[in-house]
Amino acid sequence: MTSCVSLWFTLAISSPCPATMALQKVSSNKVFDGELIKYKFKSTVLGDLDANFNLFLPANVAKGPVPILFYLSGLTCTEDNGAQKGGFLGPAAKEGIAILFPDTSPRGAGIEGEDVDWDFGTGAGFYLDATNPKYSKHYNMLTHVTIELPKVIEEAGLPIDFTRQSIFGHSMGGHGALTLYLQSLHSGTKQYRSVSAFSPISNPTKCPWGEKAFNGYLQGGIEEAKERYDATELISKLSKTPVHVLIDYGTGDNFYKQGQLLPENFLKAAREAGYDEMQVRVRSQEGYDHSYYFISTFGADHVHFHANFLKA
Amino acid sequence: MTSCVSLWFTLAISSPCPATMALQKVSSNKVFDGELIKYKFKSTVLGDLDANFNLFLPANVAKGPVPILFYLSGLTCTEDNGAQKGGFLGPAAKEGIAILFPDTSPRGAGIEGEDVDWDFGTGAGFYLDATNPKYSKHYNMLTHVTIELPKVIEEAGLPIDFTRQSIFGHSMGGHGALTLYLQSLHSGTKQYRSVSAFSPISNPTKCPWGEKAFNGYLQGGIEEAKERYDATELISKLSKTPVHVLIDYGTGDNFYKQGQLLPENFLKAAREAGYDEMQVRVRSQEGYDHSYYFISTFGADHVHFHANFLKA
Repeated sequence: MTSCVSLWFTLAISSPCPATMALQKVSSNKVFDGELIKYKFKSTVLGDLDANFNLFLPANVAKGPVPILFYLSGLTCTEDNGAQKGGFLGPAAKEGIAILFPDTSPRGAGIEGEDVDWDFGTGAGFYLDATNPKYSKHYNMLTHVTIELPKVIEEAGLPIDFTRQSIFGHSMGGHGALTLYLQSLHSGTKQYRSVSAFSPISNPTKCPWGEKAFNGYLQGGIEEAKERYDATELISKLSKTPVHVLIDYGTGDNFYKQGQLLPENFLKAAREAGYDEMQVRVRSQEGYDHSYYFISTFGADHVHFHANFLKA
Repeated sequence: MTSCVSLWFTLAISSPCPATMALQKVSSNKVFDGELIKYKFKSTVLGDLDANFNLFLPANVAKGPVPILFYLSGLTCTEDNGAQKGGFLGPAAKEGIAILFPDTSPRGAGIEGEDVDWDFGTGAGFYLDATNPKYSKHYNMLTHVTIELPKVIEEAGLPIDFTRQSIFGHSMGGHGALTLYLQSLHSGTKQYRSVSAFSPISNPTKCPWGEKAFNGYLQGGIEEAKERYDATELISKLSKTPVHVLIDYGTGDNFYKQGQLLPENFLKAAREAGYDEMQVRVRSQEGYDHSYYFISTFGADHVHFHANFLKA
């Protein structure tokens, strides 16, 4: 183990924090001279279910708190996919920034039907707070990611500087990253300095995945979603605020071809709202598909993009 | 898809080759401007079972055949682990070399007991040719990797320069890489220009994993293994031939602590045989474990090490 990382972990775990928030270390792997730690805790926001996340800490935490980049994974994924296959950890180690990998939904809520489909329920939380009473006790990934995770990490004394947060994601997680970022500009909290996405679901109120999710999780369905959970809708109402957005998608991506992603709608709305290439960059990558092979190809690019803002 | 890669693939697949050797393309992913292709074929050497492998082709195959690096994976793995988690493809794309990822054993041989243990049988072929009649029809990963795979790839017309081969691997695959390399020096074929390994089983006749494998697969058990399948034994009898060997292992590796790997035995034998640091480098990496997080940290290093010899 990196001794410095181990040291503050030892300090952190013995420091007082509310019993319900206590982090348990599940595993730890040294990687790129830093440490990837899997934690578990009882999540109040997800209805008192156990929640896992992975946290990459670069070696320079020895010198003080570091900026943090959130990575939101896609449908069917867990906190592991991005950490294992994204190719983010080497670049993050070089830049000296932490990466937090949350899970993609609550696990084991026991709601009827939540395990039937791969694109709804378990593994498919869509980074929203459910308003349909059937799901609203557990499916609150929005608050889990934006409020609860920073809170438990701060309370555990981990060496993260939460005044420096950015966010990125893939597919459903790209939707999550974009909407959480844009929401925080609308609300004025400006929680994240920059956002990026691989093959994001960019206009979910107009694609089958989004329609299914919103009609399931939200009492107000698609109309409710338009207000809060559609990146294309959100950017179109945000013409005055400076933004930092990078999106990559592959022209060989079957979900893109099927109209699940619609990055062109997001781009059009951004340009109509007055954002130029310097503020909203959407790159079409010839021949790439929806897999982590695509993500890993541009992973370093995205980490460096965020580092520009996180270290400014 | 990269059009150049697609072009020769189209040519290759339509060229004549023996029916039993025909490669079927299972999938293909663009990655780092090259292509990772999964192939399937009926393997004569593995007793007419279907065999899979992944082949990474860098974009520069458009300019002509490229050198090839074999990656042998460890216990329980398939052809996918190294391709997805090793961090090798970006560096290989930069260097312009192909990487071949074989499977770790025959699949579906139907031999009684082959699926009982995780460290013997399926997923645990140990890169040898079995002499125990119970296994000798199917468990011939040595010939599969050294002869059959180059043959089917050449016959399919894929753009590989087999006069430029190197080999590396992890754990059981590190054992495979070291022994295949050293065997080829003993026999004089000099098939590989260089070898490297992450956490290799370095002296398998003296550890539980090796003892179990050799007593199972080989009629002559441990004694037979000492002649062909133990890297420490092989290097000790090779004092005159120049070698290029790089090994990394982690001091936090539980299998290392349990005495399954024994890299210190290999190092001692190499030094006693007269090989210095320039020819046999064994690096102890503080705090790293047996996982792909460790491998990915030093993956680029290993690819660049081999590129020195493959592109010489």
